Amino acid sequence: MLRPTDDGARYELSSPTAMPHAAGFLWNRKMMIQVTCRGYAVAQFMQPEPAKYAHAPNMEATSFMQPEQAYFAHHPGRFFYVKDDDTGELFSAPYEPVRAPVDRFAFSVGQSDLAWRIEHLGIGIELRLCLPPDEVVELWSLRVTNLSGRPRRISVTPYFPIGYMSWMNQSAEYRADLGGIVASSVTPYQKVADYFKNKDLKDKTFFLCEQAPDSWEANQAAFEGEGGLHNPSALQGAALACGDARYETPAAVVQYRLALEAGAASGQRFLFGPAFDDAEVAALRSAWLSEDGFARAAAQAEAYVAGGRGCARISTPDKEFDNFVNHWLPRQVFYHGDVNRLTTDPQTRNYLQDNMGMSFVRPSVMRAAFLHALSQQEASGAMPDGILLAAGAQLKYINQVPHTDHCVWLPVCLQAYLDETADMAMLDEAVVDAQGRSESAFARVGRAMDWLLAERDHRALSFIAQGDWCDPMNMVGYKGRGVSGWLTVAAAYALTLWAGVCEQRGDAARARHFRDGAAAMNAAANAHLWDGAWFARGITDDGVKFGVSTDSEGRIYLNPQAWAILGGAADGAQTARMLAEVERQLYSPYGVTMFAPPYSAMRDDVGRVTQKHPGSAENGAVYNHAAIFYIFSLYGIGETERAHMLLRQMIPGPGDADYLRRGQLPVFIPNYYRGAHREYPRTAGRSSQLFNTGTVSWMYRCIVEGLCGLRGDADGLTINPQMPAAWQRMDVEREFRGARFQVHIERADVKSVMVRHEGKFLPQARMTGIVAGAHYRLDVFVP
Amino acid sequence: MLRPTDDGARYELSSPTAMPHAAGFLWNRKMMIQVTCRGYAVAQFMQPEPAKYAHAPNMEATSFMQPEQAYFAHHPGRFFYVKDDDTGELFSAPYEPVRAPVDRFAFSVGQSDLAWRIEHLGIGIELRLCLPPDEVVELWSLRVTNLSGRPRRISVTPYFPIGYMSWMNQSAEYRADLGGIVASSVTPYQKVADYFKNKDLKDKTFFLCEQAPDSWEANQAAFEGEGGLHNPSALQGAALACGDARYETPAAVVQYRLALEAGAASGQRFLFGPAFDDAEVAALRSAWLSEDGFARAAAQAEAYVAGGRGCARISTPDKEFDNFVNHWLPRQVFYHGDVNRLTTDPQTRNYLQDNMGMSFVRPSVMRAAFLHALSQQEASGAMPDGILLAAGAQLKYINQVPHTDHCVWLPVCLQAYLDETADMAMLDEAVVDAQGRSESAFARVGRAMDWLLAERDHRALSFIAQGDWCDPMNMVGYKGRGVSGWLTVAAAYALTLWAGVCEQRGDAARARHFRDGAAAMNAAANAHLWDGAWFARGITDDGVKFGVSTDSEGRIYLNPQAWAILGGAADGAQTARMLAEVERQLYSPYGVTMFAPPYSAMRDDVGRVTQKHPGSAENGAVYNHAAIFYIFSLYGIGETERAHMLLRQMIPGPGDADYLRRGQLPVFIPNYYRGAHREYPRTAGRSSQLFNTGTVSWMYRCIVEGLCGLRGDADGLTINPQMPAAWQRMDVEREFRGARFQVHIERADVKSVMVRHEGKFLPQARMTGIVAGAHYRLDVFVP
Repeated sequence: MLRPTDDGARYELSSPTAMPHAAGFLWNRKMMIQVTCRGYAVAQFMQPEPAKYAHAPNMEATSFMQPEQAYFAHHPGRFFYVKDDDTGELFSAPYEPVRAPVDRFAFSVGQSDLAWRIEHLGIGIELRLCLPPDEVVELWSLRVTNLSGRPRRISVTPYFPIGYMSWMNQSAEYRADLGGIVASSVTPYQKVADYFKNKDLKDKTFFLCEQAPDSWEANQAAFEGEGGLHNPSALQGAALACGDARYETPAAVVQYRLALEAGAASGQRFLFGPAFDDAEVAALRSAWLSEDGFARAAAQAEAYVAGGRGCARISTPDKEFDNFVNHWLPRQVFYHGDVNRLTTDPQTRNYLQDNMGMSFVRPSVMRAAFLHALSQQEASGAMPDGILLAAGAQLKYINQVPHTDHCVWLPVCLQAYLDETADMAMLDEAVVDAQGRSESAFARVGRAMDWLLAERDHRALSFIAQGDWCDPMNMVGYKGRGVSGWLTVAAAYALTLWAGVCEQRGDAARARHFRDGAAAMNAAANAHLWDGAWFARGITDDGVKFGVSTDSEGRIYLNPQAWAILGGAADGAQTARMLAEVERQLYSPYGVTMFAPPYSAMRDDVGRVTQKHPGSAENGAVYNHAAIFYIFSLYGIGETERAHMLLRQMIPGPGDADYLRRGQLPVFIPNYYRGAHREYPRTAGRSSQLFNTGTVSWMYRCIVEGLCGLRGDADGLTINPQMPAAWQRMDVEREFRGARFQVHIERADVKSVMVRHEGKFLPQARMTGIVAGAHYRLDVFVP
Repeated sequence: MLRPTDDGARYELSSPTAMPHAAGFLWNRKMMIQVTCRGYAVAQFMQPEPAKYAHAPNMEATSFMQPEQAYFAHHPGRFFYVKDDDTGELFSAPYEPVRAPVDRFAFSVGQSDLAWRIEHLGIGIELRLCLPPDEVVELWSLRVTNLSGRPRRISVTPYFPIGYMSWMNQSAEYRADLGGIVASSVTPYQKVADYFKNKDLKDKTFFLCEQAPDSWEANQAAFEGEGGLHNPSALQGAALACGDARYETPAAVVQYRLALEAGAASGQRFLFGPAFDDAEVAALRSAWLSEDGFARAAAQAEAYVAGGRGCARISTPDKEFDNFVNHWLPRQVFYHGDVNRLTTDPQTRNYLQDNMGMSFVRPSVMRAAFLHALSQQEASGAMPDGILLAAGAQLKYINQVPHTDHCVWLPVCLQAYLDETADMAMLDEAVVDAQGRSESAFARVGRAMDWLLAERDHRALSFIAQGDWCDPMNMVGYKGRGVSGWLTVAAAYALTLWAGVCEQRGDAARARHFRDGAAAMNAAANAHLWDGAWFARGITDDGVKFGVSTDSEGRIYLNPQAWAILGGAADGAQTARMLAEVERQLYSPYGVTMFAPPYSAMRDDVGRVTQKHPGSAENGAVYNHAAIFYIFSLYGIGETERAHMLLRQMIPGPGDADYLRRGQLPVFIPNYYRGAHREYPRTAGRSSQLFNTGTVSWMYRCIVEGLCGLRGDADGLTINPQMPAAWQRMDVEREFRGARFQVHIERADVKSVMVRHEGKFLPQARMTGIVAGAHYRLDVFVP
């Protein structure tokens, strides 16, 4: 059903129906596309805000990327009808819209391509999609092979719906001069000022054919006719009608009529994408629509992904785990860090975490991003809700709602960078803000910490305003009094980390100041939020404590526990109780859930979290971003078994008995798996299919620093692997500060971790004096 | 194919494919629904802004009503699958989604109901939809008859898609306690303030069954399965799976398995609509879901439409014309006037014209509306771009773009009311504006006229700003210099009319002031805009005259010519030339177009009109609202033949050889028919299917005052019928100032119109001394 190939760098799915939403995604520096095994596609490109060139058949709302995308017959996709011209039999590749039960099917998801192989009616169809790294264009190749052992007459009809482009203007026609179908539109506007904003947009969609088709159709309705998409009327005739669309829904449909001898094959190449004008269409054709162009694009795309491969490769007894960690996880980390989820105003917390992941891939990116974020610090010391990345960008959607957690992420994310690079000099960089005020990065982070200290109530608990991390708690503190349990212990963690940095710089006064602040917050958390076996999630404007044992819904939240461990609010005894309660109340077959029990109705004093369904992103779900912090905290206290079990649960795939239920290929971590397995067992475990998630940078950190135990410090590499009990050995290849480490880890009869280098055991499990360019082989023995 | 029944109060279409977009619409005081012959539906209700309870399968944008709605398989609709349980044969009524070629089909559009009769596989299906006047609920009845002469086992499965409700929360389940499927959602929001705005919204959608179904499905995907909507997997089994939707797309599907003896029938009733909570669902069920409830609703709905029947019924040699004028035109006028297109911020020009139509239906509505509009006059005398009708309403969409024509419509629309009622006292009503300033209606209209006089350039031509009527000219004058040819002559018309009112009130000074102003504008139009055979459309910010003979596109515009006739800018010789040029350049097989030739590309100095495709609303189309003013001006100068021919062209139906091309039933006037018949003959003539249009109030006025020639004045009724030459006689029943007139008109050997009343010829063709409650019979003889 699902198997790895190419040493796990590809995954192949052999059924279009077992996991109908299973998808792969490709991206480059300007666009992103997610395609399901059945051929549905969601693509967007930056111009500079996210825009589309293939649309639904109706006027869609502009929104952020949604989880659990709903597909339907006319959803955008890339389809290829295949018809036996002698018998009239019809199927479509990959699967939609005809949905014929084909003889063989393989959806093959690679690092920088998506491919399909379909066999039906004695005809083989191979499809491949690739994106060049710096262009907004899809490169599609199609190969049709006659497998039947006799001559065949076959018509092949690529159908790329373009959809409802604009109420103002939409049309399409075949352009012999450009060699394909070109659809035109005008992005709608009503205010004059918007005309000037819009007039340089790429409002055309093109579908270009390397070889001129025998016939074509540019009109969706004319193609479909009374037959419907599963059996289009236009495919009944000897040729397509060569029609156009005039204020009608456009589509790109071209037809090739092939006569293939036994064993013969025919190949075609196509380009699909947006353009500003004919000249741009022609230029793209000239650059890419050829055998050479496709080969060049494939090589460039491969190199692009390889450029984000990450600092560690592992070899463990769990090959599926290795596949994910070696190929897919760093790829997803790189996607987040290199293109910032294709937004121009990432949430500040996301921007910092996504770039934190780049510490393990390309640390200079994290450095620049951190300084860029600081340049948008407000005069008060607060960090804004989003970081603007492009001229003219604006804060949108959730970034218009005040959240109080953004400052926390500065030291929390910076720590990974400093551990990886020891680049303390970065803190001395001068950062000029929008008001023209220049301060060192060090001073700015300090002021952000002071802002956290200032934004506390009389009890020293952190105000929540209209939300904190995992944004749905918009009713707890909008009146200005409600406090966040999570933010209080998280701020303590941030302050503690920052105190460490101050110490490292020899600034004892500041170190003491922040450490005292952290201690006060931890004390306040213990005084007001400790509920006997776990920490409460918060206290509302009206003084109602929630996330406590007396709540019948939302009784225990994961985040306050994880961060109380990280930040020191919880002592050993408390931690033990918390771990037990998390295990008892929050564990599920699909991961550790963000809270439990799920809400069944709105709580006016908590807010949006209670309005999500059980199974949706926040309400009782396995919200991987929350889960990964719990795992991170478990590694921090040596809870190796628990940590590894939960980490492993995050990766879908054949190793998980429930992977069909998750419905996702093991090529990315989704932002959630549905929860509420007690209340809604039918849907529990289902993947969101959304690959935008702050989870992955932390997961990579957990693996490098936790599982592999190869964590940097001021002048060396600490070695403390945390192998799960079932493993006897693992191998790690690790790049660190310009050197290359090959680390063999195995279990041995030792009391503590022992490290052998060049035949000698190190005095401590720590390497110092690391020389850039050097190659180290270490043997590590763990108890 | 298409035929009238019930004396033209219904139209029946016997094919679901000949005119696939043909639709009927129903409305009441709170909602509107348009349903196509094939079963697709667009419905909205006020809460208080327009909202939906059946959605597309994806997140749709909120927008104004669009022309030429694009339908697709998963578009919202109301469908009934019918399956022979012995043979497995399947069809759906009315037609979608199975699209089986049925044996008999009739889509029957009535005044207050929509009905279908389908026969296939020896099974008769009757469907009927009705709306009670004051509730947001659809009442559906279904009758299944065994016509096959042998016992049958049949399953009948109503399928009402509910679609994508909300990214925040959507679910659905069968509720035995409420007797149907109830879908729940939360209107999405991110800002706390929006929570309070949204929390009282009707976020549930219900589908209630009078009799409990045998099985059901609330989950769209589960119903459809791999089979697709044309052949749903769920219909393959013995029963539906009784499933629910949990953050999945909801649908309402219920199944009845019937065993019918030969000739036997089974009836079912259903309610579909939105609700706030279970209690409201239960209350609606109790009120309406019964034989008695349906009968009550039908009677109330009939009475509601009858209450808007208009002041005239005609009997002419053209029965199709009579049908439209007697049944459908006043109904459409009433729709506009009674519910203002179901908006809370109608454009000022639309609001005034829609209510002008009520002068002929229920004059008190026009009176109140006119005063309401004046209460929103700005301090400068300008009228705002939209009139707010509800507390909390805001100006949206096009109403945020400054247009300069709104003041024109005050006297232009008021004239019809004064002619119909002679209610001069209305002008003395005190109108308090938003600033608390009280002025008489008379003073306010005068100030609006002075605003028109003020907003002129040094040549006395009217500034256009970002647009005038027929809104697409947003680039002509946005820099503040461009002027409108149409607005200049239209303002002259408005000023002339208002001068007449001033005279009637004995205010000679004001009359002279405004008449002088009109004369100056007409003189300016002649000096700067007369192009030799017609008036130019305007002059851009940069001094470019357009709509002139040297333009290869947009050479002549209809509106300046029509209004130059109305307002007196054109003398007799000019008028003759203009009529000839309009006939030569703007006539088309589908009506008189708004301008010609159509634009083929953007003109940066004209604006949005050039960005619409030929065939879309404005670019070269038969824009009925513009056409009707030309017709109105033709009646004004006695151009009876031209007027009638163009008027008749507006009404689709069997009398028009091209009615299949128009694709619309003769039950409303659409806002446009596609133009560009030379450039794009394939699409020319096609109806927009959009029944929101200012056309209809003017059409009614043309018929009452022009064709029938029964126009009121200060103290009587002027009689001047303008029968087309082909007619020898017509009869008119006319209500006027509380009296009832039965007027028989016939052609005779007379020099001028002669009127006989009670055996005597009147000295003039004018009745005075009309007594409310009286019944007059007039014989009118026309040359």
